[in-house]
Amino acid sequence: MASNLSFILNKPNDVTFAERPIPKLQHPHDVLVAINYTGICGSDVHYWQHGAIGHFVVKDPMVLGHESAGTVLEVGSAVSTLRKGDRVALEPGYPCRRCAPCLSGHYNLCPDMVFAATPPYDGTLTGFWTAPSDFCYKLPENVSLQEGALIEPLAVAVHIVKQARVQPGQSVVVMGAGPVGLLCGAVARAFGATKVVAVDIVQGKLDFARGYAATHTYLSQRVSAEENARNLVAAAELGEGADVVIDASGAEPSIQASLHVVRMGGTYVQGGMGKADINFPIMALCLKEVTARGSFRYGSGDYKLAIELVAAGRVDVKALVNGVVPFKDAEEAFKKVKEGQVIKILIAGPNEKVEGALDTSVDEKKLKEAQAAGSTGCC
Amino acid sequence: MASNLSFILNKPNDVTFAERPIPKLQHPHDVLVAINYTGICGSDVHYWQHGAIGHFVVKDPMVLGHESAGTVLEVGSAVSTLRKGDRVALEPGYPCRRCAPCLSGHYNLCPDMVFAATPPYDGTLTGFWTAPSDFCYKLPENVSLQEGALIEPLAVAVHIVKQARVQPGQSVVVMGAGPVGLLCGAVARAFGATKVVAVDIVQGKLDFARGYAATHTYLSQRVSAEENARNLVAAAELGEGADVVIDASGAEPSIQASLHVVRMGGTYVQGGMGKADINFPIMALCLKEVTARGSFRYGSGDYKLAIELVAAGRVDVKALVNGVVPFKDAEEAFKKVKEGQVIKILIAGPNEKVEGALDTSVDEKKLKEAQAAGSTGCC
Amino acid sequence: MASNLSFILNKPNDVTFAERPIPKLQHPHDVLVAINYTGICGSDVHYWQHGAIGHFVVKDPMVLGHESAGTVLEVGSAVSTLRKGDRVALEPGYPCRRCAPCLSGHYNLCPDMVFAATPPYDGTLTGFWTAPSDFCYKLPENVSLQEGALIEPLAVAVHIVKQARVQPGQSVVVMGAGPVGLLCGAVARAFGATKVVAVDIVQGKLDFARGYAATHTYLSQRVSAEENARNLVAAAELGEGADVVIDASGAEPSIQASLHVVRMGGTYVQGGMGKADINFPIMALCLKEVTARGSFRYGSGDYKLAIELVAAGRVDVKALVNGVVPFKDAEEAFKKVKEGQVIKILIAGPNEKVEGALDTSVDEKKLKEAQAAGSTGCC
Amino acid sequence: MASNLSFILNKPNDVTFAERPIPKLQHPHDVLVAINYTGICGSDVHYWQHGAIGHFVVKDPMVLGHESAGTVLEVGSAVSTLRKGDRVALEPGYPCRRCAPCLSGHYNLCPDMVFAATPPYDGTLTGFWTAPSDFCYKLPENVSLQEGALIEPLAVAVHIVKQARVQPGQSVVVMGAGPVGLLCGAVARAFGATKVVAVDIVQGKLDFARGYAATHTYLSQRVSAEENARNLVAAAELGEGADVVIDASGAEPSIQASLHVVRMGGTYVQGGMGKADINFPIMALCLKEVTARGSFRYGSGDYKLAIELVAAGRVDVKALVNGVVPFKDAEEAFKKVKEGQVIKILIAGPNEKVEGALDTSVDEKKLKEAQAAGSTGCC
Repeated sequence: MASNLSFILNKPNDVTFAERPIPKLQHPHDVLVAINYTGICGSDVHYWQHGAIGHFVVKDPMVLGHESAGTVLEVGSAVSTLRKGDRVALEPGYPCRRCAPCLSGHYNLCPDMVFAATPPYDGTLTGFWTAPSDFCYKLPENVSLQEGALIEPLAVAVHIVKQARVQPGQSVVVMGAGPVGLLCGAVARAFGATKVVAVDIVQGKLDFARGYAATHTYLSQRVSAEENARNLVAAAELGEGADVVIDASGAEPSIQASLHVVRMGGTYVQGGMGKADINFPIMALCLKEVTARGSFRYGSGDYKLAIELVAAGRVDVKALVNGVVPFKDAEEAFKKVKEGQVIKILIAGPNEKVEGALDTSVDEKKLKEAQAAGSTGCC
Repeated sequence: MASNLSFILNKPNDVTFAERPIPKLQHPHDVLVAINYTGICGSDVHYWQHGAIGHFVVKDPMVLGHESAGTVLEVGSAVSTLRKGDRVALEPGYPCRRCAPCLSGHYNLCPDMVFAATPPYDGTLTGFWTAPSDFCYKLPENVSLQEGALIEPLAVAVHIVKQARVQPGQSVVVMGAGPVGLLCGAVARAFGATKVVAVDIVQGKLDFARGYAATHTYLSQRVSAEENARNLVAAAELGEGADVVIDASGAEPSIQASLHVVRMGGTYVQGGMGKADINFPIMALCLKEVTARGSFRYGSGDYKLAIELVAAGRVDVKALVNGVVPFKDAEEAFKKVKEGQVIKILIAGPNEKVEGALDTSVDEKKLKEAQAAGSTGCC
Repeated sequence: MASNLSFILNKPNDVTFAERPIPKLQHPHDVLVAINYTGICGSDVHYWQHGAIGHFVVKDPMVLGHESAGTVLEVGSAVSTLRKGDRVALEPGYPCRRCAPCLSGHYNLCPDMVFAATPPYDGTLTGFWTAPSDFCYKLPENVSLQEGALIEPLAVAVHIVKQARVQPGQSVVVMGAGPVGLLCGAVARAFGATKVVAVDIVQGKLDFARGYAATHTYLSQRVSAEENARNLVAAAELGEGADVVIDASGAEPSIQASLHVVRMGGTYVQGGMGKADINFPIMALCLKEVTARGSFRYGSGDYKLAIELVAAGRVDVKALVNGVVPFKDAEEAFKKVKEGQVIKILIAGPNEKVEGALDTSVDEKKLKEAQAAGSTGCC
Repeated sequence: MASNLSFILNKPNDVTFAERPIPKLQHPHDVLVAINYTGICGSDVHYWQHGAIGHFVVKDPMVLGHESAGTVLEVGSAVSTLRKGDRVALEPGYPCRRCAPCLSGHYNLCPDMVFAATPPYDGTLTGFWTAPSDFCYKLPENVSLQEGALIEPLAVAVHIVKQARVQPGQSVVVMGAGPVGLLCGAVARAFGATKVVAVDIVQGKLDFARGYAATHTYLSQRVSAEENARNLVAAAELGEGADVVIDASGAEPSIQASLHVVRMGGTYVQGGMGKADINFPIMALCLKEVTARGSFRYGSGDYKLAIELVAAGRVDVKALVNGVVPFKDAEEAFKKVKEGQVIKILIAGPNEKVEGALDTSVDEKKLKEAQAAGSTGCC
């Protein structure tokens, strides 16, 4: 009999497994999905370690996880776009559809958003999940369920690159070579960027980035932001500066350097999250007429584009997966991510056999690179 | 015989008057203009006091002034749009017309810009001036030469409001009620903003702003940026926050508050200049997906629009003028601006009689308001 | 006892009155509204006369009307923004909220739109109406219920002017001086247009337009589109052409002239609807790099802005109202509109006393102008 | 001694060769270039055949040609970006740099444009050419001079695709599989389009397009525009319609079909030029809120991007070249283009040896395909 075993955070550093009731369809547009694979996000680890992110505080036990793909088991009476057996990527945030941001096409800014594994809402490290059909995206035949579990972080990168308005022929600098930074580089290439510079403090991560999507890399030094910026611009031959700079690190020195690396009239986007307040080169923003934008989660069209980029072979998400573990090993997987031994690790659903999962494209070499790469440190 | 007496900064706090040779047309597209009136900008005062702004350092004696209107005396052989006797507002920066920013419509970002009264280039506090005809804007009959001298600061405000993409029906908060802040409020109204909130630390300036273009005012308190933001949003009934926030103060607390006042998905523009680096609420920018832009001088179409706004009666620049002084009193006028006794003061050209200038709309009441308003403190 | 008398189109030129059941709240976000006033739109008249518009065909009896304002009688359990007694303008089209256009902020393009008085859906010429609360817009105290009934056509004009991206200082030519054309001119002014040229074939309508929002008018002649365009550009001193041209007439000669009137790089928007296919100057669109856009109904933010423009006194909708008639005289009112004796006429709800309605700002002079103006002929 | 032999159109169907004086540098920013290769454009052939295009009429003998690459021989005193020996692609239109379109970044709309081989200005089928240095683009080492001669038509395609605002993941239909249509498809792919549908009336051209950049093709039938549109949408699985439709044919039936193929809210761009006025489905533009834009030549950044796309291997221009002929065979080459025996043919400069030119990637198969492809019929 099918299990709805769930991986639950009780309080910081206290997780348990427990059976939860299998959810029922609540709305004619809902579908019931069996979870096949779930990736681990930095935010999951952060809740596990600290029990809170900003003003989101875990007060009651909460199921973790929100990077999932699954298989449709049942569809509501009003659902016409999906059927039993469809393999889907799950967009894990459900907006109200009625507020000004929702009606204007910016539902990711909905104040009433119900987001998986963001307190007080449970996440997807469970057996079964219900969701509105328009937030379940059917996977093309050439996209696997394991790739489907990586659509969520890819959608994060798609949204960041869209916020940056990357145009063909542009130069794009990405601060931070963690999963989101790596994916931003790949998406920027898919958007036509002819130069993508990966920046990090760990050489191993830069080596991986170069083999992945970066055309250039720069190892940040312990010098001033201005000096790192000058050296970066020179090393990557960026001339008057980069057209676009994306910070996917959340690190204060990277953000400072971003403003010095971007060209006159260029764009800087803040992707990763770190400290609430930092020392910021506001004069550079003003005199260079820089456009700065924040990027928060993902919105209209981002999941659709993310899946198309994978299906079209423009972005390789499998390359980021170091391995797949059975559901019972979820805590172990969280430890591996925390310790930075991996780029991305997938947890199989409680009803998923992991045999056969190992036909993912993870070879020893990539595993070594990833281990050398150490902590992602971002997003 | 006409004089080309000029007002020259030798070194900090050392200004003199001297005759300079009357310039000759250098290019078939140039025109020769007799200067009628020139306003004083905070940057003129700053050079006078400190001899430098950022990396622009006054090394040799430099003629001050760049907010001018004049009368065409002679036109080059290729000039078809102007004729002798035309009254013109002078755009004081001349780009190269050949670099990427120039060819893409952003000539204000031209690295080879020749800008009046920015070292090493002389300014317009002189008798005669030559300029390319396309940077001399003919004034309509219903716009006076004294108003013409205020087109420059108005163009600064137009550019800021354009950078903010102000849309009809929006709420706009303007930090700083100096000349540029006041003009930003007036331009925002002309762009259709239905709510304009003026913010300053001097009640007298807020009183003037309310009588000028602001629908609401807020007197900043000595509390945290978050608390000032909460109080401001409540006082001006901004609901989820302001659609647009413009900082025309350059003050660190104002900039911090700006990010807390702007709504989810809103826009913040940095107009004024202050410290190079400040403590900045980067998390607010990221989580609210704020778009932040710098604004530098003015560019394509800004002068044209500024003149149209005055001609159409949508922006009243005369209300900002406290008085007009003869050329010989230029240093005295600088002192008045430095001491914050005025909002805007005009200096007549060396060949201009000031009698008759007093038919400007400066009455006692406005003068009092302005004096009460104290130092502009910004931009 | 309250009546739900409704004004029903059985088939072309066959209308009747009948009691319909009072609707009940179907959804926790719905509200029940008593209809106070309803305007008559060209499309209502067209259905009445021809029983169809394009592929929308009236097969079963259908209640007419969709330009309404009413009073909230009851709110669903999930409604927090409205309460009993609130006066609201009714947006009469309800999208699915789940398709790509809806999720991307373009719900007016929703293929599953349920639109009042568009077959097979009933309209608002009835006593009681239910709608989702987010499509009922509370009227400010200084906006009357009769003005509320004109928010719908004003929202049409707002959407058209937004599609035209009208910027402050621009010149805008509006083809057609019917209700929508007149409102487009007024909205363009509110968007900062400094020159608004009304164009029509009826001098009386141009006279009204000039007294309303137009800065210039042009009476179309029976000459070629190119010649009308040349004469119009000369008469309105448009120089190289108009920045924006809006066609609110749907007339082939007006559309042709629009492409010849617009400047290089300008924008033309098709607001009104006429023939499906017309002879079109495609070479002008190509060589001048014109941007042409269609405008269909209204979408995100349009109702909100329309109400703000009325509340702020930027657009006067009362000036377009020639009178208010009791519900029983609905057919008579339709006849008046068809015969072009009025610009806008309001029909009181079946439970509305019309006494007191005449304190609308309709004076003899305006009525005469309107009668002189003859048929609106557009939209 | 170097020859400045030029290929001159006297009057329709009357061309001659004549020596012209070698031009001298007129301006410190000018450079003198020796022409290596020149492509033939449809407009060259049209002038040759008819002596006029629209209101551009050849009254005096005019040198033909404007698709050229050359080698820098001499640079003016103010030129810092180029040096003797640099290989450059020549942008053949020189704007005034002073009008509103020029200052706003739309110099392609400059009313005073001086464009090569557009009467009364001579073209580039000559030995030596002078131009402003900022309109001569240095070719990277991995881009040949023959590829350099194809940057001009590629820039046309880049401008068209930019006007269409093609976004990654979009579907793009291109009407017409001539040189510009083929290049539009390739550029659309480089912009991230995942589906590119080539449409033509000649199967051979579609076969070539499929081997070049198209993911799908559609052979237009002699049926109504609506029916062709339905069949095209079905055949290419475009669902609700194409995100973007580009007409590179200028043919009336193609333009009509374009409006029926594009989706609600989609974009249609008119690239090719045909009749001045056509029968146009205006209702479709209005009801679907289509954005339609014209595209005229190329502007800011287009040449730079075109060269980057070739250098980065994203667009293969060599594949379109059927052969290179010596200068003396220019008329023969024009005949071949007129007869549609080729896609693109290059004419060597009068001082260029053609031996070695044959190391271009033209093989028998491609030549056959091209001959099968028949007349380009567009642009």
